[in-house]
Amino acid sequence: MGMSRQIYLDHGATTPILNEVLEEMLPFFKERFGNASTFYKLGREARQAVETARERVATLIHAMPEEIVFTSGGTESNNMAIKGTAFAMQDKGNHIITSAIEHHAVLDTCEYLQKFGFNVTRLPVDSKGLVNPSDLEDAIRDDTILVTIMHANNEIGTIQPLKELAKICNEHEVLFHTDAVQSIGKIPVDVRDLGVDMLSISAHKIYGPKGVGALYIRDGVAIDPFLHGGGQERGKRSGTENVPGIVGLGKAAELAKNTLEDEMKRLTELRDMLVRGILSIDDTFLNGHPEKRLPNNVNVGIRYVEGEALVLALDMKGIYVSTGSACSSGSGMPSHVLTALGLSPEDARGSLRLTLGKSNTKEDIGYVISTLSEIVADLRAMSPLTR
Amino acid sequence: MGMSRQIYLDHGATTPILNEVLEEMLPFFKERFGNASTFYKLGREARQAVETARERVATLIHAMPEEIVFTSGGTESNNMAIKGTAFAMQDKGNHIITSAIEHHAVLDTCEYLQKFGFNVTRLPVDSKGLVNPSDLEDAIRDDTILVTIMHANNEIGTIQPLKELAKICNEHEVLFHTDAVQSIGKIPVDVRDLGVDMLSISAHKIYGPKGVGALYIRDGVAIDPFLHGGGQERGKRSGTENVPGIVGLGKAAELAKNTLEDEMKRLTELRDMLVRGILSIDDTFLNGHPEKRLPNNVNVGIRYVEGEALVLALDMKGIYVSTGSACSSGSGMPSHVLTALGLSPEDARGSLRLTLGKSNTKEDIGYVISTLSEIVADLRAMSPLTR
Repeated sequence: MGMSRQIYLDHGATTPILNEVLEEMLPFFKERFGNASTFYKLGREARQAVETARERVATLIHAMPEEIVFTSGGTESNNMAIKGTAFAMQDKGNHIITSAIEHHAVLDTCEYLQKFGFNVTRLPVDSKGLVNPSDLEDAIRDDTILVTIMHANNEIGTIQPLKELAKICNEHEVLFHTDAVQSIGKIPVDVRDLGVDMLSISAHKIYGPKGVGALYIRDGVAIDPFLHGGGQERGKRSGTENVPGIVGLGKAAELAKNTLEDEMKRLTELRDMLVRGILSIDDTFLNGHPEKRLPNNVNVGIRYVEGEALVLALDMKGIYVSTGSACSSGSGMPSHVLTALGLSPEDARGSLRLTLGKSNTKEDIGYVISTLSEIVADLRAMSPLTR
Repeated sequence: MGMSRQIYLDHGATTPILNEVLEEMLPFFKERFGNASTFYKLGREARQAVETARERVATLIHAMPEEIVFTSGGTESNNMAIKGTAFAMQDKGNHIITSAIEHHAVLDTCEYLQKFGFNVTRLPVDSKGLVNPSDLEDAIRDDTILVTIMHANNEIGTIQPLKELAKICNEHEVLFHTDAVQSIGKIPVDVRDLGVDMLSISAHKIYGPKGVGALYIRDGVAIDPFLHGGGQERGKRSGTENVPGIVGLGKAAELAKNTLEDEMKRLTELRDMLVRGILSIDDTFLNGHPEKRLPNNVNVGIRYVEGEALVLALDMKGIYVSTGSACSSGSGMPSHVLTALGLSPEDARGSLRLTLGKSNTKEDIGYVISTLSEIVADLRAMSPLTR
């Protein structure tokens, strides 16, 4: 394909919408544009579509439809779960536990709550990115009201022992929330089996539209609403329902469920090929866990080059990758995730995240490995970062 | 057109997307799906599209682009403005002033803040729905940190003397926020001329997509972020940018600006026709202000019938109208707006809102008037609500 070849390897940042998803959304922009909270025919049609989507999302995570609240995305879901719990339970306690490698939507939300008198414990992780369950056990206090630990990390793909962590919380009667934005659609997510009380979902990470997500709230768990207003979503999340977006999330959830098993196998194979290929370059290392890892995540350290320079050089070859997460790239700060693993600032800055998805093929992987090898050699040849 | 005739008269609840808007959005779902916070080509394209949209929204309201923050809709904009101000300024004071006829996204947000120690004054309105500026002057105290009064009411269309209200706030150095969700695109909105500090916008009320909106925050005004996370929107509103939605809002804003003057004239004429026609039915009355009123809003009381029954009967004739706002219909409670005007619960329950828009023609109006007259006569003939 020559110059016009484009290989997208940043599926952890966002994904293109699937044709089937967009097609199902389109009628709700125009012909079936009704407000889902109105009672005439146009409104009832919209309501029906919203409820079908709710069932599909519930099915994907083994929840009941009434446990799904639609939001504007993963960030809102995380803000809602954490602030909603904190403000609902502040007379019971003001201690929140999280991990050092959460997404900023969790970390910054927890930090903001300190202004309201909440105390936050950030659990460390080991060199592979795992939280130690006994650290959680030790951190829980009488005034702990919430534990929020992600399912799989967005930068390094490490999958936490969520079931074990949730069990500890259940035993101590502390609510457990997990940011599952990266794990949904990549590995099985069963809220009953995991034992979580709340779980955040984003549509645009699973080939659905941007601007829509969901929060699973287990039946019986009462948190404060985050958006106040017209009382939509049974009073849990006000705001006119984003019908096309919700329909898109529903369809994306259905497709994710149907293709999960095959994609897991296929992506794991591609991932392992890519890891082997990159690690065959001198002075490289894998970040994150070798096995307890998302099937589509590769995060590698490449010594004596700058990650940002690699991103730009690959961009010019039509290969799209990132350093760290899209949300904090460009800040100039080394990734808080990589530094939490114990990486030096230099090693953290030379790290690259490649996240695979539906469009990637074996051919792509070969091309990426050879292109990256050349670029690394070139950059190192002229790099001020000498060995 | 017989049986299949459909006349949509609920543009205050939501509007269908315009072709030009949807067409401009479509590429950003698939081909140009990049995350706007990434730095390779796909990401830069998305960023560019977001900034073009920001300029268009700014132009519509005579703001600077950097004063526009994209949100998930009018409800989030209102929550962000009110909670963001309250939490940022709680050491300066804890008093908030609003009006009795605000949308629930304002009223319920203010009410929620009481839990955090804020005091809320709800200004009354006169029988036409107007806030008296001297009431505002009297209500401002040393500890007042925010006044939030809507530009035009969503149920009765009354347009507040916003410039006068904002001037009082400016003189007292109190921040002034306005919910302009209903006025944008219907009447001129110039944030400099009005003198407001914050202003809420929703896309789906101006033929743009659901699930996206904006908050104007005057340069120099610092409020707390409402959504914490990756630091998008220059740290003011985290969450992956809803690129297609934002592009849609931008295009809708551009079109609203271009068609504003002509539509104002056209809709005012249709509105007055519709009002005259309905008021020619016995025992009917107009709610709201006869002149200081949105060009597309009709709200009428029809005695001795139930509003809900009218909505259903009109629905069967393909005419879509509402009682009150979409957000509170179905609650069984009489509208807080109509009761604030001094209407009895019975009169409030018999009221109907008809909100005009681009698709409506003179022919429609004639058909609606004759159909409504017949339905009212039928319902009254069998109604238990006797005169």
